[in-house]
Amino acid sequence: MKEVINEKAIQLGVCYYPEHWPEELWEDDFKRMKEMGFKYVRMAEFAWTIFEPVEGTFEFDLFDHAIELAQKYDLKVIMGTPTATPPAWLTEKYPEVLNVSRDGVRYNHGSRRHYNYNSEIYQSLSKRIVKQMVEHYKDNPTVVGWQIDNEINCEINEFYSDADHVKFREWAKEKYGTLDRLNEAWGTVFWSQTYTDWKQVYLSRATVNDSYNPHQFLDEKRFISDSAIHFVQIQSDIIRSITTEQWVTTNGMFGHLDNHQMTEEALDFYAYDSYPNFNKIIEDNSFMPLRDRKWSLNLSTVRNFGGNFAIFEQQAGPGGWVNRIAQPTPLPGQLRLWTFQSIAHGADLVLYFRWRTATMGSEIYWHGINDYHNLPNRRIKEIKKTSEEIQRLDSSIFDSKYVANAAILTDYNNEWDGEVDTWYGDFLGESKEAWFKAFQYHHIPVDVVNVTQNMTLKELSRYQVLVYPHAAILTESTAELLTCYVEQGGQIIFGARTGYKDINGQTYMKAFPGYIKDLVGISVEEYTLLNGWQKNPKVMMFGEEIETQGFNEVLQVDADGVDVIGTFKNCHYENKPALTKRNVGKGKAYYFGGVFDYQIATMLLKDLQVTNYEDIFLLTSDVELAVREKEGHIIYILLNYSREVQSIEIKGKMENLLENRIVSGEVEMKAYDVMILK
Amino acid sequence: MKEVINEKAIQLGVCYYPEHWPEELWEDDFKRMKEMGFKYVRMAEFAWTIFEPVEGTFEFDLFDHAIELAQKYDLKVIMGTPTATPPAWLTEKYPEVLNVSRDGVRYNHGSRRHYNYNSEIYQSLSKRIVKQMVEHYKDNPTVVGWQIDNEINCEINEFYSDADHVKFREWAKEKYGTLDRLNEAWGTVFWSQTYTDWKQVYLSRATVNDSYNPHQFLDEKRFISDSAIHFVQIQSDIIRSITTEQWVTTNGMFGHLDNHQMTEEALDFYAYDSYPNFNKIIEDNSFMPLRDRKWSLNLSTVRNFGGNFAIFEQQAGPGGWVNRIAQPTPLPGQLRLWTFQSIAHGADLVLYFRWRTATMGSEIYWHGINDYHNLPNRRIKEIKKTSEEIQRLDSSIFDSKYVANAAILTDYNNEWDGEVDTWYGDFLGESKEAWFKAFQYHHIPVDVVNVTQNMTLKELSRYQVLVYPHAAILTESTAELLTCYVEQGGQIIFGARTGYKDINGQTYMKAFPGYIKDLVGISVEEYTLLNGWQKNPKVMMFGEEIETQGFNEVLQVDADGVDVIGTFKNCHYENKPALTKRNVGKGKAYYFGGVFDYQIATMLLKDLQVTNYEDIFLLTSDVELAVREKEGHIIYILLNYSREVQSIEIKGKMENLLENRIVSGEVEMKAYDVMILK
Amino acid sequence: MKEVINEKAIQLGVCYYPEHWPEELWEDDFKRMKEMGFKYVRMAEFAWTIFEPVEGTFEFDLFDHAIELAQKYDLKVIMGTPTATPPAWLTEKYPEVLNVSRDGVRYNHGSRRHYNYNSEIYQSLSKRIVKQMVEHYKDNPTVVGWQIDNEINCEINEFYSDADHVKFREWAKEKYGTLDRLNEAWGTVFWSQTYTDWKQVYLSRATVNDSYNPHQFLDEKRFISDSAIHFVQIQSDIIRSITTEQWVTTNGMFGHLDNHQMTEEALDFYAYDSYPNFNKIIEDNSFMPLRDRKWSLNLSTVRNFGGNFAIFEQQAGPGGWVNRIAQPTPLPGQLRLWTFQSIAHGADLVLYFRWRTATMGSEIYWHGINDYHNLPNRRIKEIKKTSEEIQRLDSSIFDSKYVANAAILTDYNNEWDGEVDTWYGDFLGESKEAWFKAFQYHHIPVDVVNVTQNMTLKELSRYQVLVYPHAAILTESTAELLTCYVEQGGQIIFGARTGYKDINGQTYMKAFPGYIKDLVGISVEEYTLLNGWQKNPKVMMFGEEIETQGFNEVLQVDADGVDVIGTFKNCHYENKPALTKRNVGKGKAYYFGGVFDYQIATMLLKDLQVTNYEDIFLLTSDVELAVREKEGHIIYILLNYSREVQSIEIKGKMENLLENRIVSGEVEMKAYDVMILK
Repeated sequence: MKEVINEKAIQLGVCYYPEHWPEELWEDDFKRMKEMGFKYVRMAEFAWTIFEPVEGTFEFDLFDHAIELAQKYDLKVIMGTPTATPPAWLTEKYPEVLNVSRDGVRYNHGSRRHYNYNSEIYQSLSKRIVKQMVEHYKDNPTVVGWQIDNEINCEINEFYSDADHVKFREWAKEKYGTLDRLNEAWGTVFWSQTYTDWKQVYLSRATVNDSYNPHQFLDEKRFISDSAIHFVQIQSDIIRSITTEQWVTTNGMFGHLDNHQMTEEALDFYAYDSYPNFNKIIEDNSFMPLRDRKWSLNLSTVRNFGGNFAIFEQQAGPGGWVNRIAQPTPLPGQLRLWTFQSIAHGADLVLYFRWRTATMGSEIYWHGINDYHNLPNRRIKEIKKTSEEIQRLDSSIFDSKYVANAAILTDYNNEWDGEVDTWYGDFLGESKEAWFKAFQYHHIPVDVVNVTQNMTLKELSRYQVLVYPHAAILTESTAELLTCYVEQGGQIIFGARTGYKDINGQTYMKAFPGYIKDLVGISVEEYTLLNGWQKNPKVMMFGEEIETQGFNEVLQVDADGVDVIGTFKNCHYENKPALTKRNVGKGKAYYFGGVFDYQIATMLLKDLQVTNYEDIFLLTSDVELAVREKEGHIIYILLNYSREVQSIEIKGKMENLLENRIVSGEVEMKAYDVMILK
Repeated sequence: MKEVINEKAIQLGVCYYPEHWPEELWEDDFKRMKEMGFKYVRMAEFAWTIFEPVEGTFEFDLFDHAIELAQKYDLKVIMGTPTATPPAWLTEKYPEVLNVSRDGVRYNHGSRRHYNYNSEIYQSLSKRIVKQMVEHYKDNPTVVGWQIDNEINCEINEFYSDADHVKFREWAKEKYGTLDRLNEAWGTVFWSQTYTDWKQVYLSRATVNDSYNPHQFLDEKRFISDSAIHFVQIQSDIIRSITTEQWVTTNGMFGHLDNHQMTEEALDFYAYDSYPNFNKIIEDNSFMPLRDRKWSLNLSTVRNFGGNFAIFEQQAGPGGWVNRIAQPTPLPGQLRLWTFQSIAHGADLVLYFRWRTATMGSEIYWHGINDYHNLPNRRIKEIKKTSEEIQRLDSSIFDSKYVANAAILTDYNNEWDGEVDTWYGDFLGESKEAWFKAFQYHHIPVDVVNVTQNMTLKELSRYQVLVYPHAAILTESTAELLTCYVEQGGQIIFGARTGYKDINGQTYMKAFPGYIKDLVGISVEEYTLLNGWQKNPKVMMFGEEIETQGFNEVLQVDADGVDVIGTFKNCHYENKPALTKRNVGKGKAYYFGGVFDYQIATMLLKDLQVTNYEDIFLLTSDVELAVREKEGHIIYILLNYSREVQSIEIKGKMENLLENRIVSGEVEMKAYDVMILK
Repeated sequence: MKEVINEKAIQLGVCYYPEHWPEELWEDDFKRMKEMGFKYVRMAEFAWTIFEPVEGTFEFDLFDHAIELAQKYDLKVIMGTPTATPPAWLTEKYPEVLNVSRDGVRYNHGSRRHYNYNSEIYQSLSKRIVKQMVEHYKDNPTVVGWQIDNEINCEINEFYSDADHVKFREWAKEKYGTLDRLNEAWGTVFWSQTYTDWKQVYLSRATVNDSYNPHQFLDEKRFISDSAIHFVQIQSDIIRSITTEQWVTTNGMFGHLDNHQMTEEALDFYAYDSYPNFNKIIEDNSFMPLRDRKWSLNLSTVRNFGGNFAIFEQQAGPGGWVNRIAQPTPLPGQLRLWTFQSIAHGADLVLYFRWRTATMGSEIYWHGINDYHNLPNRRIKEIKKTSEEIQRLDSSIFDSKYVANAAILTDYNNEWDGEVDTWYGDFLGESKEAWFKAFQYHHIPVDVVNVTQNMTLKELSRYQVLVYPHAAILTESTAELLTCYVEQGGQIIFGARTGYKDINGQTYMKAFPGYIKDLVGISVEEYTLLNGWQKNPKVMMFGEEIETQGFNEVLQVDADGVDVIGTFKNCHYENKPALTKRNVGKGKAYYFGGVFDYQIATMLLKDLQVTNYEDIFLLTSDVELAVREKEGHIIYILLNYSREVQSIEIKGKMENLLENRIVSGEVEMKAYDVMILK
């Protein structure tokens, strides 16, 4: 990313909407941005009517002037293509560009993201506006890059317009070639669903009882992802064909989208919008809730899309729409903490959202750095201070790499299939969070790694430990790769419901856990959902009895070298194996016939061999440890998510880069404070 | 109202549906009404098919005969125009008259109020039936007045038929003149919503995420109100053009309707439908719930529409539809109590709903005075007794005025804008109820006063205290008026979220609380929503620490003469001002950076100067005190809402008009009992 | 049924889907079925695309071959007609065959039961496929019977396609003859709903507030039932016209369907699908929950459709769809228990659902006897054992009759009317379950008997006790029949809300409880819903004070011989009658002005004279007693629904048919165990 953005240090910036404000405010705004140390400003991503007020008539004056003023204050400009909000003239004249609900209700003008990806007329109008804009700004040295659209698949990630139905049919034809192959993949023999003509094939439509063919439903998600990526690709191709000086990205992380594929195929790097304050409207009643620290899980996921990344929207105040989303105001210190959280996980460029709170529209409560009235406030001060700190230290962290010796494996197949499968879908998130918490609270940095069909051993062998909680869909080739990983010395952990489905989401006609059965050396003798109707069974493991939740698989040992390290209690399968461990080659393979929670993950963590930095720090669980490496040098970032002071111990001597002083021994971290140590 | 209805004393009556019953029952029914002391009977408001069974063919026999019999028993008849329930032949032939959901689902025949106000064909057919009826009854001396339609905006108060979209466009054109002005008022630059042709303008339509332009949404409510009033006006004009002997009103109080404007422009007086038994299906878990006493708040609101009023539907039994609304039976004494509650607040004419429970239709459980079978019951006895009491006393109360020295201010702008704004909307009702409770339980009669842009100082200066809890929309002219009010000696109280929005619902680019900043002498330094995610801050005021709810504004003193009388605790803005009081001219202006509850309102009440009748009565909180004045004489009405006996003290000697005897000193009020004292 | 199925002993079987599996598995599957003692196999009920892959082209090879192999292993085959799942080619070409929601959303291909009964094209295509299949298999000796469609009215039991609206109009025309009569029956004078042309008449369509004419709504249910029966009749007629050797049935028990009428008019016997494991996803927080024992109530209802019956789907594992229904695995012993539960209540033929779990489609979690992979499992063993037991004993139970001396009365009028009537509808189920529990836990076998207008005294006089909890709709002729029943020595119990409605669901203009007033000798003086707003009144009865729920009727004694055996407490009708008992002729009539619960039903049970088998057994409440009779011999079946051992006493000496030994005195029943005693 360093090469792409052409920077030598972490840069800050802000999102700005000149079209919202009287022209007389602009210069002072840019001047104050410069004073705050900002170098980047993002503009124009919702401004289609400004650029093309009448169909085919293009105007650039407003933004030309804004960019000129930005340049005066040494700001680099990122332009957004405005396709997330088609103008009223467009949707009124071409209503077929609109997205439609499954039941046929058209989504109209008035909110955002109301278009569909597959309308030919929308693609054509989008191409024209993008082409016009890029042609206009391609030689403007202030404009350094492009954000395509805005938050792809945000707001809504299902599409049922006529164009989508038609395109889905083509997509399926291309994928399956013949209807026989499609019928087989979708198991249409069940309930007489067999297709005998391609024109019978649609995206899911309203059915009795809202029950759709689950295999078709899985393909529907893949199709949505492909459609979105194709739409991004169209714009990316135009930009890249016109300019090689300006980079291309988009911002997001939303559902039904293969972000890895999109980044690889269409973007120079990935940009994420980080709003940890959402934790204040999301209930999390779990033991040791992650709250704003959950964004470290999100950032770890983003990091996997393509290494270091940008933040295009870093929370700068409370967020809220008029009729939904009502976030309290961040507490003193949190905006700074969250900025460093982004940097700790791999952000090399951070833009705050946004300069000033809008006085009109659905988002008048999505607060910017400045309030509506531009009067001084606490947020401006805190971000100014943060900016000064980053300017002092950034060359050492910029372009460094996050160091993790453990990884949680995920994949889109299970994520999308699990969305509608109540027999394992919920476990994916529960176990992922449980493991992330366990790693976090024990100060073991962890990556989130996406499993693909062309993944190599090299990508995995860097990790001491892999956790792949509930990969219901697990192919033979993935099983082989994971077996190689273990044989060469890796440790892997699987949970219940592993390996019983094929790539179409159909169940294998073979003993569970399917293709990894030989690796783990067990098979599933019997299983049951636990839905709270009766007392949940317990598992005796590592000398303690722990209640299980969600699902139980009773294991049967099939191979040599399997240690039964956990057995069931309080149920009719009392004393049967629940947790096993097998030495395979130089490594170990664990299988747990249940869903993971924090307690179980923590116990397993103690049984595993993994670097935990205990020789360097003694940290409290409220403090996150991130480790970064650059040219052989290690930098440690400590983040305190608690409103309480934390007493920690630094076992050696280190330099605190934020304060330019040596620290050692017992140290106190203030509420929401950050330390960067070298 | 006295002049309009031409009475000298309070009159009772009942709603009757001759079309529901065999003709042979009618005479006996009217005879028994007379025996119960009833003088008025309302008829015909749902009888379109009776009057016009075939399009263009009119029949009056059924009602002519019923009116003739009513006359025989000295009953005066109020006729309803039947436009609330268009017949099946009408909606089948002209489906465009039907109302439609935002998503395009048409509401059909089978329930009621399924029409839209803006269909030209519906207006035309409505005009014809009304004209026919008024022409027919204009010279009938028994018919004394007209109720237009029934419960305008009840059942549903949103309209999305084609006719409504078209009319809204015209309405907007008339209001804004140019699209530029509309675009500015609706802030359409946000999310590229700019309109470039009038034909792009619609009422809100289905959007992604159900998020509509909030400024357009506010105008949509204004448009609905204007449409409804226009529809009433059309009928009122016809009636008034044909007869000057018969008065015109309608009944109701429902949402999205400016009842003040409607009363002023189209009615001779307002009629309200009072069903306090709804309290038994509305949850109210608050400290000191209002329950059926909440109807005193409703009646106080109704009183403000134009002084004394009529009750056209006074609850006479349990209410219920077949599939919804399930009210238990009123307890002995409650029907009488609720009748006097209406009278205490300004009803000069009270009709019970209804004579007999219907044996068919959706409302077979909306019980009348008589059960289905006409056999004797407890309700008949209680209403008969009440009627006798009212006949004995009424000349003294009839046409008297409610005396209040305090007022709660409300307005339609905030009511409608607040409906979709989660950042203050809920606080409106919470604080209004909290203050009403505090006034009620401390026996301080209070008015509810609607703030308009042409309000005069004279209308306000009669009050010692005004409470205007959360007027987010607050114009410069209103701010000036309220400043004058205070300067001339008034006391005013504002809560959080005051004055930050303009008339379009956009936020001002100025310090909060906007135009009243100088009056209260403070500005808002920082604010936050409280959504329960962390412990709510407290406020130390009047020596006590009280937990705050909903919203906090941290205040900053900007002017002289501001007393900080409350400060925050348990939060990062600890010790900063939360509640201030400023002497301005001869008066005082309070500002509270929070949402009011009963406890806080009670504390403030003690700090204010307001007549509280403590020299006259010592009352328990379960007893409501209403004070009425007529020709210089004061009448006190005491209402016991408790099922327990209340011990009260009357400090002087008074005449109990219901019992024709002198009372003094300690007196017991029975469960649900009423005293009228002079 | 014995004559119809031509068996001499109870037979077992299984549902099989050859179209789901590779042909090479079939023979082994049938072979293993035979080894398990199965004699019947059901096939083909969802296989329309297999039989008619292209419109008008019919293919039988797949099933011919499967049937041939089944025959080789002595299996008898039941063929399903495939009309529950029209193929994609059909619904794509003729979308008018699809069912439609009330709001006009069409239910498409992808799930099942997406067709409507009244489409002429669908009826015609259904006739053709059924005719083709029956002609093809009519002479095949292996094919012994037909299942029409699958689970009529399952998934959805409301229909609003154009064909349904049109047919409903015809149905109403036929029923009422004139619009005047329809208008009267539906009470359309209320809210001006009067119809003046048949073309104005529709099934309910979207209305404001979702409030439909309740009398029309009741007729709508009758129409749906008639439509469904007509559709079954069409198929039944075809089958019977082609073959007299093969019997006809269908499987189910779902809403809006008069199963009695359907069985009588169109079927040779009734088949039920029994899934007691649904108890694990249905919350039942009542005192003494029925859980899986609730299926005994269902089976008692099924028995009333026409005596002994078949089970076509007997639960054989956990049930679940991909996106809904998530049942835990049955515990060891439960599959056997549930099989005997079916037999105890009257099943002479039991097919398990299904042989093997499907690997594709919405029901991949609806487990069969075999898992996906055919490996040995606990369920196979348990069913095999059960099969062996049944083969040993069945001649003695087969074709025996359930013996009950008490009956709970129900009827379709109240069931359908009560669905939308919140003023009594919920009480139907509550009281029925309360009484069923009381009978069950006191070991008094009970029937559920459907009240019809042509019921005879003979059908009732076999019972010592009838309970008819809340028959709001109660006609004069039914009242006369019940009076005769009591006079000749019967005991009857009524609850609140009895007899106040006529056959159209309109209220009578007469004192409650209408036509049974003279029988019970009381009338209802006053009544009230109880909705928890205030403390519920109690009733003092049999020396105890019991809290009432739901509804209170204050009774007034009108006749001689009425004993007040319960009075109200804690309310304004304190000491007034709540429960009465009257000797009439040789019998007794009870009236309770409330809703029944287990405690009240138990107290009344002790006051009644009813055979309770206490001289034969001393049983715990967890054990169900079923009594069967055949040729004068009595067989007792004991079923333990508890996971705990139950100690019971057999007072005489009996033969335990399952173990072929004599048992007597104190005996222990294991968890989920069954005893069959003679």
